Amino acid sequence: MKLLRVGAPGREIPAVRADDGRILDISELTADVDGAFLAGDGVDRVRAALEAGTLPEIPNAGELRIGAPVTRPGKVVCIGLNYRDHAEETGAKIPERPVVFLKASYTVVGPNDAVLIPRGSTKTDYEVELAIVIGREARYLESPQAVLGHVAGYAISNDVSEREFQTEYSNQWDLGKSCETFNPLGPWLVTPDEAGDPGGLGLRLSVNGERRQDGNTANLIFDVGYVVWYLSQYMLLEPGDVINTGTPAGVALGRPDKPYLRAGDVVELEIDGLGAARQEFTAA
Amino acid sequence: MKLLRVGAPGREIPAVRADDGRILDISELTADVDGAFLAGDGVDRVRAALEAGTLPEIPNAGELRIGAPVTRPGKVVCIGLNYRDHAEETGAKIPERPVVFLKASYTVVGPNDAVLIPRGSTKTDYEVELAIVIGREARYLESPQAVLGHVAGYAISNDVSEREFQTEYSNQWDLGKSCETFNPLGPWLVTPDEAGDPGGLGLRLSVNGERRQDGNTANLIFDVGYVVWYLSQYMLLEPGDVINTGTPAGVALGRPDKPYLRAGDVVELEIDGLGAARQEFTAA
Repeated sequence: MKLLRVGAPGREIPAVRADDGRILDISELTADVDGAFLAGDGVDRVRAALEAGTLPEIPNAGELRIGAPVTRPGKVVCIGLNYRDHAEETGAKIPERPVVFLKASYTVVGPNDAVLIPRGSTKTDYEVELAIVIGREARYLESPQAVLGHVAGYAISNDVSEREFQTEYSNQWDLGKSCETFNPLGPWLVTPDEAGDPGGLGLRLSVNGERRQDGNTANLIFDVGYVVWYLSQYMLLEPGDVINTGTPAGVALGRPDKPYLRAGDVVELEIDGLGAARQEFTAA
Repeated sequence: MKLLRVGAPGREIPAVRADDGRILDISELTADVDGAFLAGDGVDRVRAALEAGTLPEIPNAGELRIGAPVTRPGKVVCIGLNYRDHAEETGAKIPERPVVFLKASYTVVGPNDAVLIPRGSTKTDYEVELAIVIGREARYLESPQAVLGHVAGYAISNDVSEREFQTEYSNQWDLGKSCETFNPLGPWLVTPDEAGDPGGLGLRLSVNGERRQDGNTANLIFDVGYVVWYLSQYMLLEPGDVINTGTPAGVALGRPDKPYLRAGDVVELEIDGLGAARQEFTAA
C-alpha cells in the first residue's frame, strides 16, 4: 500500500494511492499520517476501506503538491558511510559499527518541494537514500529478525548535505545536515508487504538529467534489519521516526570535479517500487 | 517570570511561579507552554494576569511532579567543548568555531525525573549546562546583538552522555547523547528579564552530595548571543527549540578516576537564578 499526503504545506490531506493510480482520501479514517496512525490499526483500516472501494477520490489530485508521506518526525536518524563504494569515495574507512548521526527533523519537506541552498554555501550535495519509517515503538529489540513488525514502510529520501558545514567547521556532521528543507521525503510511504525485500532495491539519482548515483540496497554494509535493531539498543525509536540508511557512491564530494549543486539545478531520485522525486535547488 | 509545567508525564498543567513561591495555573491562558505560546503574546498575557492577581493557585502543587518547562522541542541543539577548562580536560583543542551536534528531542524529561542508564552502559556521564529556549523564529540573524528578541528564556539542562557510545563507536557523538531520558530540563523556563545577564551565571553539579562541576557562564568560549546568531546562519531555529550551550570542567570523563554514574547515584544541578534539579539514575 502506498500512503501519501497531498495539499499545501501544513494542510496536507492523508491519502492512499490505488493500484490504478487514483489518489483516494483517507481523512475519514485518520486526521493525518502520523505516529499514532502508524502505531495503531490505521493501516489495516485503510487497507480494508481500499478493498471495500469506499474511499472517495481526491479531485484533481494530480495537480496538488505532494507533502512528505508522514508528518514531521520526532527524529530523523541517519547512518553514514553505509555503502562500501561511498565510504571509499570519501576516503573513509569501512566502518565496523554503523556511524550514527541526527538530522533536525524540521528539514523534512515534500518530495518535489524546492530545496534551499544556504547562504554562503558552495558545497551543497545530494544523497539518495532508502528511508525507513518506524511503525511501532522499538526499544532493545532482540535481534535483526525482530525488526519487521516495527517498520511502517519505506520512502525515498534525499539526505541533502552541505559539505563545508558538515566536515570543515567541526568534526560533528549535524550542522551541514540540518539546513532548512534539507530532507525531501516521498512521494509515498510504501508498506513492507508491497515494498518487498528492502535488501534488493535499485536507487538512482540524476542532476540535470545526468545520472550521478546508481546503487542497490543489496550493497548496504548494515542492512535494514541490522540498522533498526542496532539503533534500538541505544535509543527509543518511536512511530513516525525516520531512518536514512545511507547513500551509495556518486555524490559530488566523491567525484574528481566536485560538481556541487547550484541554484537552478534539478535533482531527480528514484528507488525501485518507491516512486520518484524531483527537486529544484534555489538560493535561500 | 518563571514558567513551568506540573503533573504527570504528557498531562502537565502549564503554570507560573509567583514571587512568593506559589504555583499558579495558567491553563486558562494557554493549553501548554509550547512554541506557539512562546512565539505569540502568551508570556505578556501571563505577566498581565500575574500582576492582576487573577490566576488560581494549583492545590498541593508542591506534591506534583514537575515536567520539562516546555513541551517536547522540535530540536535540541548542543554546543560541544564550549568551556575552555572542559575542552582541556577531555584532551580536545579549543575550537575555533562552535562544535554543533544534535540530541534527539524525545530525551527531554522533567528536572527531577529518573534517568535511565542504558543497558550495557559503563560510561554514563553528567553535564550541567545552561539551556536556551527559543521564543521567536531565528533565520540568518544579522548579529549576536540581534538575538535577544528570539530567546524565550533559560533553564537548567543535564546533557547526559554515554561516553562509550558517544566517542568509541564512531566519530559522531549523537548516539551517546540520545538515549532515553538523557535530557532532564528545568524546573523553570526563566524569562530573560528575570534571568539577567546570561553571561555571568554560576552553574554547579554534585553526585551523591559531592561537588563535581563548579563553573560560570562567563567562561563560555562562545556566549549565548554568539551561539544563537551562529546557529541561525545554518539552521532555522523555531519557537520551543532548546540549545544546550556546553558544560564546564568536572565531568567523569575528564577526571582521573573516571567516576561514571551507577544505578542509585543522585545528581543535583543548580544554576544561579534558574533553580535546582535532582535526578536519580536507574538501570534501564
